[in-house]
Amino acid sequence: MHPPQWIAAWVLLLHGCAMDRPPQAASAKTDIRNCSAVPPYLPPTAINTTARLAALRGTMRAHSVHAYIVPSTDAHMSEYIAERDSRLGWLTGFTGSAGTVVVTWDKAALWTDSRYWIQAERQLDCNWELQRTTWIKSIGLWILEAVPVGGNISLDPFLFSIDTWNSYSQALHGSGRTLLPIETNLVDQVWGDQRPPPASSEIYSLPAAFTGSSWQEKVAGIRQQMEQHVRRPTAVLLSGLEETAWLFNLRGNDIPYNPVFYSYTLLTNTSISLFVDETRLSAAARQSLRAGCPGPLCVELQEYGQARAHLRRYAQGNVTVWLGTEYTTYGLYGVIPQEKLLEDSYSPVMLAKAVKNAKEQELLRAAHVRDAVAVIQYLLWLEKMVPQGEVDEFSGAQHIDMLRQAQEHNCGPSFQSISASGLNAALAHYSPSNRSSRKLSVDEMYLSDTGGQYLDGTTDITRTMHWGVPTPLQKEAYTRVLMGNIDLSRLIFPPNTAGRVVESFARRALWNVGLNYGHGTGHGIGNFLSVHEWPVGFQSNNVPLTAGMFTSIEPGYYRDGEFGIRIEDVALVVEAQTKHQTGEKPFLTFEVVSLVPYDRNLIDLSLLSPEQIRYLNAYYETIRARVGPELQRQRLEEEYRWLQRNTEPFPLGSAAAAAAATATLGTLALASLLSALLTGLQA
Amino acid sequence: MHPPQWIAAWVLLLHGCAMDRPPQAASAKTDIRNCSAVPPYLPPTAINTTARLAALRGTMRAHSVHAYIVPSTDAHMSEYIAERDSRLGWLTGFTGSAGTVVVTWDKAALWTDSRYWIQAERQLDCNWELQRTTWIKSIGLWILEAVPVGGNISLDPFLFSIDTWNSYSQALHGSGRTLLPIETNLVDQVWGDQRPPPASSEIYSLPAAFTGSSWQEKVAGIRQQMEQHVRRPTAVLLSGLEETAWLFNLRGNDIPYNPVFYSYTLLTNTSISLFVDETRLSAAARQSLRAGCPGPLCVELQEYGQARAHLRRYAQGNVTVWLGTEYTTYGLYGVIPQEKLLEDSYSPVMLAKAVKNAKEQELLRAAHVRDAVAVIQYLLWLEKMVPQGEVDEFSGAQHIDMLRQAQEHNCGPSFQSISASGLNAALAHYSPSNRSSRKLSVDEMYLSDTGGQYLDGTTDITRTMHWGVPTPLQKEAYTRVLMGNIDLSRLIFPPNTAGRVVESFARRALWNVGLNYGHGTGHGIGNFLSVHEWPVGFQSNNVPLTAGMFTSIEPGYYRDGEFGIRIEDVALVVEAQTKHQTGEKPFLTFEVVSLVPYDRNLIDLSLLSPEQIRYLNAYYETIRARVGPELQRQRLEEEYRWLQRNTEPFPLGSAAAAAAATATLGTLALASLLSALLTGLQA
Repeated sequence: MHPPQWIAAWVLLLHGCAMDRPPQAASAKTDIRNCSAVPPYLPPTAINTTARLAALRGTMRAHSVHAYIVPSTDAHMSEYIAERDSRLGWLTGFTGSAGTVVVTWDKAALWTDSRYWIQAERQLDCNWELQRTTWIKSIGLWILEAVPVGGNISLDPFLFSIDTWNSYSQALHGSGRTLLPIETNLVDQVWGDQRPPPASSEIYSLPAAFTGSSWQEKVAGIRQQMEQHVRRPTAVLLSGLEETAWLFNLRGNDIPYNPVFYSYTLLTNTSISLFVDETRLSAAARQSLRAGCPGPLCVELQEYGQARAHLRRYAQGNVTVWLGTEYTTYGLYGVIPQEKLLEDSYSPVMLAKAVKNAKEQELLRAAHVRDAVAVIQYLLWLEKMVPQGEVDEFSGAQHIDMLRQAQEHNCGPSFQSISASGLNAALAHYSPSNRSSRKLSVDEMYLSDTGGQYLDGTTDITRTMHWGVPTPLQKEAYTRVLMGNIDLSRLIFPPNTAGRVVESFARRALWNVGLNYGHGTGHGIGNFLSVHEWPVGFQSNNVPLTAGMFTSIEPGYYRDGEFGIRIEDVALVVEAQTKHQTGEKPFLTFEVVSLVPYDRNLIDLSLLSPEQIRYLNAYYETIRARVGPELQRQRLEEEYRWLQRNTEPFPLGSAAAAAAATATLGTLALASLLSALLTGLQA
Repeated sequence: MHPPQWIAAWVLLLHGCAMDRPPQAASAKTDIRNCSAVPPYLPPTAINTTARLAALRGTMRAHSVHAYIVPSTDAHMSEYIAERDSRLGWLTGFTGSAGTVVVTWDKAALWTDSRYWIQAERQLDCNWELQRTTWIKSIGLWILEAVPVGGNISLDPFLFSIDTWNSYSQALHGSGRTLLPIETNLVDQVWGDQRPPPASSEIYSLPAAFTGSSWQEKVAGIRQQMEQHVRRPTAVLLSGLEETAWLFNLRGNDIPYNPVFYSYTLLTNTSISLFVDETRLSAAARQSLRAGCPGPLCVELQEYGQARAHLRRYAQGNVTVWLGTEYTTYGLYGVIPQEKLLEDSYSPVMLAKAVKNAKEQELLRAAHVRDAVAVIQYLLWLEKMVPQGEVDEFSGAQHIDMLRQAQEHNCGPSFQSISASGLNAALAHYSPSNRSSRKLSVDEMYLSDTGGQYLDGTTDITRTMHWGVPTPLQKEAYTRVLMGNIDLSRLIFPPNTAGRVVESFARRALWNVGLNYGHGTGHGIGNFLSVHEWPVGFQSNNVPLTAGMFTSIEPGYYRDGEFGIRIEDVALVVEAQTKHQTGEKPFLTFEVVSLVPYDRNLIDLSLLSPEQIRYLNAYYETIRARVGPELQRQRLEEEYRWLQRNTEPFPLGSAAAAAAATATLGTLALASLLSALLTGLQA
């Protein structure tokens, strides 16, 4: 499934941000809304935001703020956020996961990336301009036009990463406007008691069977890195919710689909401070954390709201605080004196978490076997039900969620299931609702992008299907998307290669005929953590690929108003066997751990090279070997037969080999004729 | 030919600088030098630098400088520099084109990239440590170990780009050491009157037949960009020597191989200041520049040394100065107040120069046809002379230089010819000298990387050959390098794609068997300007590929102590014909303009796919069509026959189609036999 960050990053990547030139003008596409009509035409899905905006503007005037920037994230730079943190959503009505809002005294605008343009038109009322870019420079330019010299541009410093803060600061630099952090969130003030309360559910310890190592071992590993670092940091600050959850083998339920909980951690060389609502910890969790008290492996539990004050006090000593700039907000960063900072893009915990050890790899593999069972059940069910006209997008999504729920160790979906039929699949992040849900049909393609949370791992898989007669373009596009998936999956590459330099292999088959897709090609994934686990992936801000990392591989093709295709698997980076060797470390490749066959009805075999077909057949053998026994164990005999049918080896064929085959046949024919003639001569 | 910057950048790219982690320890390779022996063992090529270092340290002490950083570049961030600017070379004895030196009161170290490690060991005496990385952070760490807290680290601010300055500043930040710019260059003080004098040769106008447009048109284009820019810059500052040369259609002879001259330009919306030694301008050049005086198209000639003072005065007004940070030194940058700066990575002149107009494209194509004639003459000559044992690396290099010189509009080589036999070719930048030159032999591979300056264009081509029986590894590696060259050359990709995301296509065939090369894949090239013309290429700091750009494509493979392979062509980015279309702009591909066939003796046809063979055959048809007539026009009949022989179409073959080819040949053989038999029967 697509993570929001990397779409935006990809758009930047391909449109030359390195040149620091203004982005191209947004396409002059007609907005669904007609705000010039009297009364304005708005889709019924739009929300009336007039009162909320008026209230916010009142607060802004009271603070002498001329423009207020509202991001879509929370204080931990989480990708998924709790309802309580959905300030942008409440203010605008827009429910997309990525966007930035700026409100001035007389204007209001939302910036979001291409996945969400149509959705935004459907959800924004006429108070809002829709800006079709996510480039901070362009937001800055808009602000410069909207706010006179001398004006204050304000934001909540706890909702902006250091880099984002710096980008705004640079965009407004020397313009005569002031960028003014205000610690009171103005939207929260207006939201008042309508705002959802803080989370209160239990925070629990993950059983040892589902962890790669104990939290004490993890802490020891991080402290060793601190000691060995030339700058000798005295502490590591963790702001990302996954960091704390992973480090202490704790899980919670504060954010939908993500088993994390609100927290910060300050891990020093002699102490450990966990900032969290202590009352929410399970007895076992508290016991685990306090077992080493007093001592260097004693976790001191402190109030969540005290993180900043504690950090400020700590930073007064002779200390060096190591942090990852991508997950730390300007609000915390600002209390540490510059000379006491050791900044990397990602904290050592983030990087340790990204490389799964042998046990974590086995856990993730096992989760994918059970996940494949659920998806195969779903595909078989669809095959039977869709021709009867009994399935719509919403009921389909409910059904796959239910099938996963029935699998051992399942803890619900890992994101809102994407279930999109026909033209809806061209909206890369479409999710159906009870109110608007298209019927699945044998006349349309259907895209299902779903995943599960299991105690042993997080899954994410996309399959696209057609149960009738696909058009030639659908079949060609699907086959080329599959070729891209195969070409990247079977790529052999040197150790420490950055994902961004190899992701084009997933695009070449499409590029070759003038097609492409407008999103990234993959993202990391966790062990019962986030479905989008940074910093692994194929984006320019991802870290180099290393054995033990898991990433999705998910090329696609989308045709506005017609159909959408995506083929997504999760793959583990493994060492490759190569004929020769360069350097001391072996080259790498991928082992695909998602184990569900592709739609044979959509594959044009004549486009595939013999190597691609051989790869596909080997992958299908693996699926049979790993999922077949599990289907039998679960007594899913019909699914087992479906799997056998759908993993039949493909005949080796391609344009070249087709020629080879013909030539060989020709030779044989001539040889027979010759033989007949010779026989005739001899006779 | 490899540009220095991009090797370093590539090394960073693949080794995870994004993670801000220390680089891996340099390999524990034994140094050729043995500095612990008594007396130390040194190759005869090493230079005694004891006196120079002692003198420099004296000056450092006088200035209270504890560490002095000396880069390999000049005040214009030139890649090639004049002898007068070779401060690093004079101080160390090291003649490689890329490196950084730090001298403290008791230590001295050189940092350089992997191309130059062996060369550095051969040229440095035991005063010098060789540091096998180019990472500024690692230089910073070394300095922190060598210089106590409170110490001054100094450098000449005119020799460091803004970014490099910032990197040093960051590396030393908060360490208690001071980074102190000193405008007097300390090496120059010590060098004294031994330092070569400034250039004095003529600066001349390029005839209109060899320019894409008049300098007035170019100035008008840049001024238009200034007007249309949202920041409304009032001036553009040009520091790169190519920028001024290109803008005014002027050429000089100040730097070997590069027809440029020392200069700066300040182009404002109402005036043009060219900072140059006025006495060196030819009468025609002066007339061209002064034709529009007085007026906005009058070029005011000012002293080269006055650039900084003039800029400082200009920057006191109500102005905005637009500059490219990559080519501007901290020395100039520092005189402009922050709020009056408009910074991009590259100036608008640099970006305009990168996209060749139709006439410039034709000029470059034409230069490559004549260049191919010289190279083909050379390859034929080698074929005849090498078996006689009459050619060594040096005489070979002299011969190709002479052959180019004989071609119309030639103005000498575009870089020092690389002519490397056997193991010498594993040193990617080896150039032979009169003293040490290996004999070419039918038992070894030979690599020739050469280029020419022509009034209509600059060329750069590498061919690798074997006149005897190559080993299986040599043949496999050569074929895979060729496959990489072909795969990137025939790639179709979306407009505005960054080179860095496609350069792996040039590596995949090697990666597939565990091989790789340690340098970048290509660089831009000029119209009678630099052989390495930024910012075009496949590096992370190159700009996206656009129709009209020229770049080299040059994968390689190097085996230490054994052999080296590189296959380099120059290619023009052109619009592609695709079956479908995405977006408004057509997709792009490459048109290879280097027109010399590859060594058939080194191609293992069975590794090539049918698509690769078809591409190769089409390329050879182009060579025949474009170079054949020119060979005939120059009455080079033997070369013409050589070309015909060496551009014979290859049979369509590959692993899959090798079968087909065999089958086809079999079919043909059988068919002949059959035909004979039938004739026999009829008779």
